Amino acid sequence: MAAAKFALGIDFGTESGRVMLVRADTGEEVAWSVVPYVNGVMDRSLPDDTPLGPDWALQDPRDYLFVLDRGVREVMRESRVNAAEVAGIGVAFTSCTMLPCLADGTPLCMLEGFASQPHAWVKLWKHHAAQRQADRINQLGARRREEFLRICSGRYSSEWLFSKVLQMVEEAPEVYAAAGRLIEAGDWIVWQMTGREVRSECSAGYKGMWIKGQGYPSRAFFHELDPRLESVVSEKIEAPILPLGSVAGGLSKSMAARMGLAPGTPVATAVIDAHAAVPACGVTEPGRLAMIMGTSICHMLLGSEAQMVEGMCGVVEDGILPGYWGYEAGQAAVGDIYAWFFRTGITAAMEQEAGRRGLSPAEWVTTEAWRLKPGESGLLALDWWNGNRSVLMDAGLSGVLAGATLATRPEEIYRALIEATAFGTRAVIDAFDARGLPTRDIVACGGLAERSPAVMQIFADVTGREIRLPRSFQASGLGAAMHGAVAGGYYKDFGAAARGMTGLLERAYRPNPAARSVYDRLYCEYRTLHDYFGRGTNDVLKRLRAIRREVTGQ
Amino acid sequence: MAAAKFALGIDFGTESGRVMLVRADTGEEVAWSVVPYVNGVMDRSLPDDTPLGPDWALQDPRDYLFVLDRGVREVMRESRVNAAEVAGIGVAFTSCTMLPCLADGTPLCMLEGFASQPHAWVKLWKHHAAQRQADRINQLGARRREEFLRICSGRYSSEWLFSKVLQMVEEAPEVYAAAGRLIEAGDWIVWQMTGREVRSECSAGYKGMWIKGQGYPSRAFFHELDPRLESVVSEKIEAPILPLGSVAGGLSKSMAARMGLAPGTPVATAVIDAHAAVPACGVTEPGRLAMIMGTSICHMLLGSEAQMVEGMCGVVEDGILPGYWGYEAGQAAVGDIYAWFFRTGITAAMEQEAGRRGLSPAEWVTTEAWRLKPGESGLLALDWWNGNRSVLMDAGLSGVLAGATLATRPEEIYRALIEATAFGTRAVIDAFDARGLPTRDIVACGGLAERSPAVMQIFADVTGREIRLPRSFQASGLGAAMHGAVAGGYYKDFGAAARGMTGLLERAYRPNPAARSVYDRLYCEYRTLHDYFGRGTNDVLKRLRAIRREVTGQ
Repeated sequence: MAAAKFALGIDFGTESGRVMLVRADTGEEVAWSVVPYVNGVMDRSLPDDTPLGPDWALQDPRDYLFVLDRGVREVMRESRVNAAEVAGIGVAFTSCTMLPCLADGTPLCMLEGFASQPHAWVKLWKHHAAQRQADRINQLGARRREEFLRICSGRYSSEWLFSKVLQMVEEAPEVYAAAGRLIEAGDWIVWQMTGREVRSECSAGYKGMWIKGQGYPSRAFFHELDPRLESVVSEKIEAPILPLGSVAGGLSKSMAARMGLAPGTPVATAVIDAHAAVPACGVTEPGRLAMIMGTSICHMLLGSEAQMVEGMCGVVEDGILPGYWGYEAGQAAVGDIYAWFFRTGITAAMEQEAGRRGLSPAEWVTTEAWRLKPGESGLLALDWWNGNRSVLMDAGLSGVLAGATLATRPEEIYRALIEATAFGTRAVIDAFDARGLPTRDIVACGGLAERSPAVMQIFADVTGREIRLPRSFQASGLGAAMHGAVAGGYYKDFGAAARGMTGLLERAYRPNPAARSVYDRLYCEYRTLHDYFGRGTNDVLKRLRAIRREVTGQ
Repeated sequence: MAAAKFALGIDFGTESGRVMLVRADTGEEVAWSVVPYVNGVMDRSLPDDTPLGPDWALQDPRDYLFVLDRGVREVMRESRVNAAEVAGIGVAFTSCTMLPCLADGTPLCMLEGFASQPHAWVKLWKHHAAQRQADRINQLGARRREEFLRICSGRYSSEWLFSKVLQMVEEAPEVYAAAGRLIEAGDWIVWQMTGREVRSECSAGYKGMWIKGQGYPSRAFFHELDPRLESVVSEKIEAPILPLGSVAGGLSKSMAARMGLAPGTPVATAVIDAHAAVPACGVTEPGRLAMIMGTSICHMLLGSEAQMVEGMCGVVEDGILPGYWGYEAGQAAVGDIYAWFFRTGITAAMEQEAGRRGLSPAEWVTTEAWRLKPGESGLLALDWWNGNRSVLMDAGLSGVLAGATLATRPEEIYRALIEATAFGTRAVIDAFDARGLPTRDIVACGGLAERSPAVMQIFADVTGREIRLPRSFQASGLGAAMHGAVAGGYYKDFGAAARGMTGLLERAYRPNPAARSVYDRLYCEYRTLHDYFGRGTNDVLKRLRAIRREVTGQ
């Protein structure tokens, strides 16, 4: 191992795969490569033009293999690092992104007879066509008091494994029957690399109903869900479930040749991309919240014990890092709300004004919004443009804006939307806090954290916590490399890996006391409206959706 | 009188005066003229550049005289009507628009020493700088249980006479001292025409604290308000108070010469412009609601008895037409809210799309909004962008929009705003109804009614009432002419005048039963939010304003 001085991280995202080679001792990036998926996100049709229904989102597993072929070769060539110097490989993957394959790992969509069958392809995490199935799972799970519902606050998501499996068996039983295995794409790609099928504790725990020490739900549960699913676990899913940071296997000879690496190089158990980012943010102990900020926000916190925190998306033992309970919460739309505003709230006059100053409209409106004092807009919003993922866990909610006057300007609305998303994060922090899981400070990563200092300062002012950013802007990729380094034995655990490989930028967003005191008052108002609209006092938001569905027939 | 076959109506609006000569028998327009005010609305500075404070709005009385000089001459010349054939002259005027003048009627602002003194000029109805004074009037009035507060639902407006008078005595006591008379501009222009100072029951009752059979508040009340005001009524205001449709006096020789009319032509008591529109809409009996629709909406209803209807702006005996109690309600912003949306909610892409179709952005977005089914947007708004004038009478409220999602489009927001203003009108109709004052159907006039068929259909669908429009698009001007015709004796009363001079357009907006049933459900939701935000369950909208004032120091 003396010669092994590098770690390889491969981060399979929604639109592309990113490969990073880093120094194992410092985490310093040596080379990286981005490989866009040829077929990207298929949400209208398959490559052969077979149309897809609304809310579908598929991918092509060949695109993942191409990332290995091309991306890894690129970084190895560019870095001139000797293949023998790679201590280990880590894989981060979106989740739950799942596919059906034969018992030998061949994806069904790659077989002649299944290429035109949508259910034979990879269902991407944001495939949302299994809501009815999720509803049935939740009803049945609640009636049977199934344990898996407790760890996700009673709401098993339409995005998760068995919602997608149930949709498959109902809509395409022949695909289900032909599938020797139903597997997370992260586990599948590790299988392709090592020749050994294992499952990760991370995705099994957060998305797959698996509970450490208890296993999967019973055959009786699956039978009642659908008789055809009675043996789904034993026949199509069961496999060794490995902890994070462990070795899934050594790189196979054939894959080593394709990738330009050494056979036998340790490959770590796959990890969900957001979860991979946590140690890369230097978060390896309780008390520091990791926020992955982009179109949405994932909030990740480690705890020394199991607590049922209101509205968590998942509470999984060893689910983020070994030795801790991993808490995941989230906001369903954050950057997406800002993008909605940029799409619908920028007038022609504002575009002209921005152009005159040599700024993009988004930059200009951000500057204008940032000039405002807290409370100056007189506006208050509920950040539920895409429902509420935590702490209410209610996709049927929608956004509210209060306080508009004839003098209200677009930049004031934008400011109120930023503040609302920050209030949403504060509500998550409060939910943790109420269960004895304090947030001392925050490390934030992701595009929003890197590119929007105004947004970050508002988040600091609203939450009353200092926020810092990791040195690396590729947190999931670096996290994957850390998994590789731990699996490869370069570090004894993630704490040591984080001390070696990560660091924070100097710049800190510190709460401004004056702003914070105004935001404390506004947050009280937010909470009152949050509970009024979100906890059943007035279910108007749901009734508006119901009326909408009725009149549009959707 | 046999030769007298015409009536002259002069309507003094916010930006211009409009003169209309009509046939007294049919109401048919013979000639008309619009005379813009040279100094318009002065809200930043006086003509000599003396700056004005925020919320000020002044006018120049010379502009009113110029309407008489030029506008009347123009219609007489154009029509070739013999001056002797004019049966009577009616004057409609904005209110409360008031000025200080000498005992001979000379406006103080026309005197050498006062031209640079803002308080010496005409305070226009929308002068809003006397809010503190209105607050004090309301506090004192409530403590003393003054009767004048009962007829305006407990809220004497900052726009009304004594709020403006109190501001004057506090901020410019020398102007107050020099003012022999404090007078509504409508009464002042009638005085200029006839040489006789009288006051109209209409403005005295709605804006001037005067109650038929009881008179003005006591000297004790005014003394407690400000000792300098103790004798304000007897010294500066008291004058004969005449009913509507009565003769204020005959046209003086000198004014007849200036205007090209016959000396002695009967001039009617002045009437508030919105109130003048009521008979011009053919509304001369209870059961039919007159709506004057523009930037805001005035709702006018006649009743056979006095009822204290929640949140009415005024309930005045003989205040709209002799023989009935006149009920006035209103929405503070309607067209103004749409204009806010056009100003802030039209993106560059929408402008381009509109241009491609040869439409203005406002036209295009109206077309798109009109395509939507009721309930389709999933949005619901409270129409309080400029506070609530009826039925909550609370200027401290502000607008709310609920139900936004990432798919929400600007035209859906616009549609929700239109619907919200219609819900506001329905709330007014319900308040009347709750006191035994039913609205059978509606006649609507004003720019919005004339130009926005989509808006009118939504109002019909939401209120469940048929809405029709008067033949004449100059309702206040025609109403003024009707006052002239009644005062001149051509008709014995306004019922007869309305039968002769008015009519409705054929086109009727009839409630669509399917739309109405969706709107009934949405209106229930509106009422729930209306009461939650408007009746003290959650005063968040006021606290947002308070925080805003604090942080901006305004």
